Amino acid sequence: MSNVYVIGGGESKYGELWDRSLREIAVEAGLKAVENAGIRTKDLNAIYMGNSLGGLISKQEHLSALMSDYAGIASEYVPSMRIEASTASGGAAFRQAYLSIKSGEHDVVMVGGAEKMTELYGTEIIDITSSLVDREWEAFNGATPAALAALSARKYMMDFKVKKEALAAISVNDHANASLNENAQYRNKITIEQALNATPIAEPLNLMDCAPMTDGATSVILASEKYVKEHGSKGVRIMGSAISQGPFALHSRKSFYTVEPTIISTKKAMEQANIKHKDISFVEIHDSYSIYGLMALEDLGFVEKGHASEMVENGIGINSNLPVNPSGGLKAKGFPYGAAGVSQIYETYLQLSGKAGKRQIKDATCGLVHNMAGSGAASVVHILGVD
Amino acid sequence: MSNVYVIGGGESKYGELWDRSLREIAVEAGLKAVENAGIRTKDLNAIYMGNSLGGLISKQEHLSALMSDYAGIASEYVPSMRIEASTASGGAAFRQAYLSIKSGEHDVVMVGGAEKMTELYGTEIIDITSSLVDREWEAFNGATPAALAALSARKYMMDFKVKKEALAAISVNDHANASLNENAQYRNKITIEQALNATPIAEPLNLMDCAPMTDGATSVILASEKYVKEHGSKGVRIMGSAISQGPFALHSRKSFYTVEPTIISTKKAMEQANIKHKDISFVEIHDSYSIYGLMALEDLGFVEKGHASEMVENGIGINSNLPVNPSGGLKAKGFPYGAAGVSQIYETYLQLSGKAGKRQIKDATCGLVHNMAGSGAASVVHILGVD
Repeated sequence: MSNVYVIGGGESKYGELWDRSLREIAVEAGLKAVENAGIRTKDLNAIYMGNSLGGLISKQEHLSALMSDYAGIASEYVPSMRIEASTASGGAAFRQAYLSIKSGEHDVVMVGGAEKMTELYGTEIIDITSSLVDREWEAFNGATPAALAALSARKYMMDFKVKKEALAAISVNDHANASLNENAQYRNKITIEQALNATPIAEPLNLMDCAPMTDGATSVILASEKYVKEHGSKGVRIMGSAISQGPFALHSRKSFYTVEPTIISTKKAMEQANIKHKDISFVEIHDSYSIYGLMALEDLGFVEKGHASEMVENGIGINSNLPVNPSGGLKAKGFPYGAAGVSQIYETYLQLSGKAGKRQIKDATCGLVHNMAGSGAASVVHILGVD
Repeated sequence: MSNVYVIGGGESKYGELWDRSLREIAVEAGLKAVENAGIRTKDLNAIYMGNSLGGLISKQEHLSALMSDYAGIASEYVPSMRIEASTASGGAAFRQAYLSIKSGEHDVVMVGGAEKMTELYGTEIIDITSSLVDREWEAFNGATPAALAALSARKYMMDFKVKKEALAAISVNDHANASLNENAQYRNKITIEQALNATPIAEPLNLMDCAPMTDGATSVILASEKYVKEHGSKGVRIMGSAISQGPFALHSRKSFYTVEPTIISTKKAMEQANIKHKDISFVEIHDSYSIYGLMALEDLGFVEKGHASEMVENGIGINSNLPVNPSGGLKAKGFPYGAAGVSQIYETYLQLSGKAGKRQIKDATCGLVHNMAGSGAASVVHILGVD
């Protein structure tokens, strides 16, 4: 009786939501998830909110209290807290919720992810997003998140003779999938040529290699096996869950294009799930920069280091062998930092429940979710499956 | 085999540490805790960091990665994340660590708390600490944390005919205890008269009613019963753990001087611990403002609402019936926001292990720890005891 299930979810539109506040979108996602899961707010035993920059952007900390209060949940005195692990906050929050149910203390838990990114202007963006890297050693010397990704891309392309087309293919796939996702920020399809010719950001990366600034919120509801059986809830089982944390700064790592925490988390989660790579129907990967998409496919073990370009060229679309980012990914569904991990889980829940509409993957029975902190300081891997 | 123990801890000096960074003090506390607990860093299965304002003050998020990296723990790829629940971040992080061990996934976990407060200047202090209240509805209208505490104090004093002397007694006791704590920020004893005549802050509260801005870090190590038995570790058992979250803004609550989350958490934790109030040897309470100290003693159930002043007048010193804040409390040991909850746990561990030196409480067998978010949006209560 120690299994844990995702029994529902909901989200706001993703995009530049100029007329909406962090509070509003967090509440919208939370209440939609409660309704979708068929529970009542008073059934909740706890709320975990993934959020990375609410303090620095909206000058509002304790986001879990804010959401809980305005969703009317606070009147039930439901415990809540915020989980922060940079851009892996959503995945980390999901894992904490999972552990809290496994501990036997909780039966029904909400995981929320919310971020309001567009209140940043000009160089503020660089200053504030640099709070997620090792500020004193990286950002201080000009190594912003985009610059760090560019370093990895340059070294990767050089060592493995990979062309820009392979990076572009990650973003092209994201846009194609997002065109089928009505909540996505960018629903326009793009071609490889368009991706290659976009405005440079940090060579060799251009605008189409970089996930956008996104306002968005997603919530999912987790429940214990006991609750699911007693209430006849339909859910998707959490088969594996792992997080790993390595050196913070890129310069401290053994390799510029290998994220050890992804390798370690994947190994643990796969062992728990007791499955092989061929059993996985699709993946949601953390492609905040296109290069991280290629690196992830390798570190997750789907292809050897340096060979993701071949995999991408063979196709990673919804009808391919291994569909990647059916949601539209960070590049096109959007990238609300602390919410991204929850967004990925929600998509996986939708796909495995057969509720993904136009972008439904046929016969999907098992999905892997990869959420990463910054340039790879930490990775969270979850495996969800149909019972 | 599902018991969880605190098997060690360590901390930095508390105070205005102008020459030390957030990173440094967090690492100092973490490594001292590892040594004190008699473990090696590679024994750690996870790290939870309580921190509330690292982003806004030091522009550094993902503090768990920063600490882990510089403590050399990242090379072991130990999972880490930051927990934020305003000034209850430390207590919330401790609870997550506890649940993670109860879930069966972890055997040895570090909980760190660190905050570097003194990098704030002038009105920045008001702006940034107001990120912990409901910014749009409270701070925007001038209701800063101190102003909110003053509202509660005014109403409390009026309704229960309580004099300022009762509030002052909380701070006088903190200073007396801190004089025996070599890590405390303020080791000077103060008299009731001195406390009454200090500079006004927000009437009726003055400087001696308000906890200071403190730089400080504390870490503790938790271990499963299995680990403790196998390694012969000496520890203090976590007998009860609960958190509750109510309405965020003071104006949304039923009462200005009753913190429902404290009442609810206490009830849960006491039931788990299966003890009565008379079994508790001492308490560490969250007295960020003196009025919150009086309110806590009542909401924790040691005395009826409105009567804490009598309890305080009868004595709450180290040799009293119920010693309060042997550490020196938030007022005199110091108040590094997100670290305070871990600091309280560490003191409780020291007292119950007979390691509290000059401030040792005689025959202490059970301690209650109360950590609160802001003006009472959430409360975390833990009960620790000797087996």
